[in-house]
Amino acid sequence: MKRILLNGCNGKMGRVITECVAQREDCRIAAGVDVNTATLADFPVFASPSDYPGEVNVIIDFSHPSALTPLLTYAVEHGTPAVIATTGLSPEQVEEVKRASGHIPVFYSGNMSLGINLLLELAKKATAVLGDGFDVEIIEKHHNQKIDAPSGTALMLADAVGETMPQEPRYVYDRHSQRKKREKAEIGIHSVRGGTIVGEHEVIFAGRDEIVTLSHTALSKEIFATGSVNAALFLSEQQPGLYNMGDLVASK
Amino acid sequence: MKRILLNGCNGKMGRVITECVAQREDCRIAAGVDVNTATLADFPVFASPSDYPGEVNVIIDFSHPSALTPLLTYAVEHGTPAVIATTGLSPEQVEEVKRASGHIPVFYSGNMSLGINLLLELAKKATAVLGDGFDVEIIEKHHNQKIDAPSGTALMLADAVGETMPQEPRYVYDRHSQRKKREKAEIGIHSVRGGTIVGEHEVIFAGRDEIVTLSHTALSKEIFATGSVNAALFLSEQQPGLYNMGDLVASK
Amino acid sequence: MKRILLNGCNGKMGRVITECVAQREDCRIAAGVDVNTATLADFPVFASPSDYPGEVNVIIDFSHPSALTPLLTYAVEHGTPAVIATTGLSPEQVEEVKRASGHIPVFYSGNMSLGINLLLELAKKATAVLGDGFDVEIIEKHHNQKIDAPSGTALMLADAVGETMPQEPRYVYDRHSQRKKREKAEIGIHSVRGGTIVGEHEVIFAGRDEIVTLSHTALSKEIFATGSVNAALFLSEQQPGLYNMGDLVASK
Amino acid sequence: MKRILLNGCNGKMGRVITECVAQREDCRIAAGVDVNTATLADFPVFASPSDYPGEVNVIIDFSHPSALTPLLTYAVEHGTPAVIATTGLSPEQVEEVKRASGHIPVFYSGNMSLGINLLLELAKKATAVLGDGFDVEIIEKHHNQKIDAPSGTALMLADAVGETMPQEPRYVYDRHSQRKKREKAEIGIHSVRGGTIVGEHEVIFAGRDEIVTLSHTALSKEIFATGSVNAALFLSEQQPGLYNMGDLVASK
Repeated sequence: MKRILLNGCNGKMGRVITECVAQREDCRIAAGVDVNTATLADFPVFASPSDYPGEVNVIIDFSHPSALTPLLTYAVEHGTPAVIATTGLSPEQVEEVKRASGHIPVFYSGNMSLGINLLLELAKKATAVLGDGFDVEIIEKHHNQKIDAPSGTALMLADAVGETMPQEPRYVYDRHSQRKKREKAEIGIHSVRGGTIVGEHEVIFAGRDEIVTLSHTALSKEIFATGSVNAALFLSEQQPGLYNMGDLVASK
Repeated sequence: MKRILLNGCNGKMGRVITECVAQREDCRIAAGVDVNTATLADFPVFASPSDYPGEVNVIIDFSHPSALTPLLTYAVEHGTPAVIATTGLSPEQVEEVKRASGHIPVFYSGNMSLGINLLLELAKKATAVLGDGFDVEIIEKHHNQKIDAPSGTALMLADAVGETMPQEPRYVYDRHSQRKKREKAEIGIHSVRGGTIVGEHEVIFAGRDEIVTLSHTALSKEIFATGSVNAALFLSEQQPGLYNMGDLVASK
Repeated sequence: MKRILLNGCNGKMGRVITECVAQREDCRIAAGVDVNTATLADFPVFASPSDYPGEVNVIIDFSHPSALTPLLTYAVEHGTPAVIATTGLSPEQVEEVKRASGHIPVFYSGNMSLGINLLLELAKKATAVLGDGFDVEIIEKHHNQKIDAPSGTALMLADAVGETMPQEPRYVYDRHSQRKKREKAEIGIHSVRGGTIVGEHEVIFAGRDEIVTLSHTALSKEIFATGSVNAALFLSEQQPGLYNMGDLVASK
Repeated sequence: MKRILLNGCNGKMGRVITECVAQREDCRIAAGVDVNTATLADFPVFASPSDYPGEVNVIIDFSHPSALTPLLTYAVEHGTPAVIATTGLSPEQVEEVKRASGHIPVFYSGNMSLGINLLLELAKKATAVLGDGFDVEIIEKHHNQKIDAPSGTALMLADAVGETMPQEPRYVYDRHSQRKKREKAEIGIHSVRGGTIVGEHEVIFAGRDEIVTLSHTALSKEIFATGSVNAALFLSEQQPGLYNMGDLVASK
């Protein structure tokens, strides 16, 4: 059973991680750190990691960029692997994270969703296996307040497929103004917008009389919190270095 | 049990109708008519409707435009309702069909699929009920040899929704080149192309924390044949006049 | 523009209704009532409906059973239509609601979701139109903490379909232990359980080479709040009497 | 460009393979073999493989068990890899196939669908990556004439997932008669039956606020034909031995 130090334990994401860990049998939170030191669960909460006298196997940081330096200092001093899931780090802070990874295992990922990173890996595998005989189309769905299209994740999926395709891919966003057959190199990308949809991504491989579909649906942003727990368990077994969600997925 | 005269009984669609009727208990084929008078099922086959000495409740015509005149003559003489499902009629022949409908019930429809016509009706109802708080998006999927986009059916669906919406609708085919929120009046229409997909249509109503989706999947063009059987049973109960699939759907 | 009195305006559902109404142009909240009289939005909040000196077109009640009697008294005295969306009423209170509906329009519904009630209506229509040639199956999906199966909504859907079917329906929950073909009268009901799925219901009509699917996805329980706003606008146009979501759906 | 000898070229599956190869640029059919030696495409047709004077890179056999021995004899003599996609081999013939694989590369697979075998591999990967925090449910859909449930493919998927799960899996086919929460070890298997659905399989991984779904839809049995072309291209690069679809999928 892995012992976790949770930095930012009383924030929104911290509380999700607490709930999530409570349902698992392979890890538990040994201590929390937060500017608000109220005790909300069955572990002690400290104002700073250095206040905690015990030892942990891994740290999860879902706090604030301003809390980064003391956390990394603690992690390197204790040789404790650290998952840095705090967003909004400055370029200098990202460098600080990378430097720490010279001494300890550090996990830092652009997208902390386990499911999305799995989908990327599966889409690459499917493209490699199905090959030339299948046409790839991507549908993403988001709420009606989203101003960009397609979503960043849809582009990541298209890029992952495109790099694996035999041809140079061509992204197609609109077919209504032309009268022509689909070309092999096309990857159709469709952006559905409506209501309060949190985020859905679907990769369709359509071949001769068979269709393979890989999809991911997010019901809330909490998925980044739960992804960080998986990251922590993975990281606690690694050698020093910089890791991301793609490494975790590839390791399984 | 309704007795059917099947014109074009040995053609591809005729044989599908034969199989379809064999599985039903509310109707049976009393006689077939075909240029090829081979007997393929448990009913006699004649070269012309006038060769058949018996009486039927309704006629289904899935043959060739050249067979239209003798069929309508027979139908009007006997006062027998006639479903005209033959495609490729000339404008003059369509007029001939309409004239016959002054004397007998005649069914003639642009789209003979029961499911698609149901979807049109349900989409209108959903638009009326859900109203302003839901955003409508349409996804259609077809094989990679289709040269037009969106499909005619997708446009029929968009028009049906659009006429029922409180605003003047605006069809949107591409969102990737702009950075702006979705507007209420938009109906997004997405044309997926791949493999040998026969035809899928999906109407999505996305509101605040709930999504209603209505979809139709065609597995073959045989659906036009089975639709004609439903049309025949409907028509056999009607007064003289011209009817289409929309009338059938509305009648239930 | 309809003016609404919102009873329970500072509760969870009350705040959702406030947000929802703020996005509409056909209604606004004129006043709120709550035991907590803090002003959270752009309307005044009173401790009791009788404290409000103005007039409204309709009342939405999403509060507590203990607040029912003063609310109904106010509503009947002012002749104001009232949507009673508070849950947990005693049988005596339900009688009280019914008595009030002798004097004013009252809306009281077992399921306040507009989408689910629409789905019920569409499923009945689809059953009537598609008839004997289509097999009906229902899939419902809920979170892994739900102890009952199938969901009450799935049973409502099965009942709605079953009443409209030509045969006496038979609900089938398990097919793995037998070796036999599906019978016409079967309605397969499948209960998927996993993760934190809020609630999905899908009614599948599978016929000869075509499939019609009607589905509803809930992303949160807020849908009951938004449904009450639709109910209020509907109710403000009605004569005295008792109304539910089915009446609203049927009216469109 | 790989040259293929197609045994059974004028049968139903043979003609599908012919069409399928015609659309590819990485292979072509050099010669066909069939009891019916009519020339239906742009390659010569022989009554026996030994009548063909040329050389090929690989053989596809989609013919009849009675044609197996002369085919394997030819293949071993010429050192030509052979895809045996003929069904209905006797146990002795399966042994014969295995013996041949001591000399040449032989491909023989219980399920020749590329998509289904890919789905198996992806489901295992997803189970390994998502782990304990996700619940797995399988939905399969087939036509109303199918007498067994669940489908063999659904069981293969459940077994593949079950072997990869941390717990000992328990298959659950019915939840309606009990009132209890879902257990981690459950794999729900749901058999939908209706209309003429050819075959759909869906593996759902439902976790905390995210859902990953992997699905395969077959539109006809032709997918076994197209799978054999992929097998042939794969096999033409292998060393002597016995291979199946799982090997092909794993190789990419």
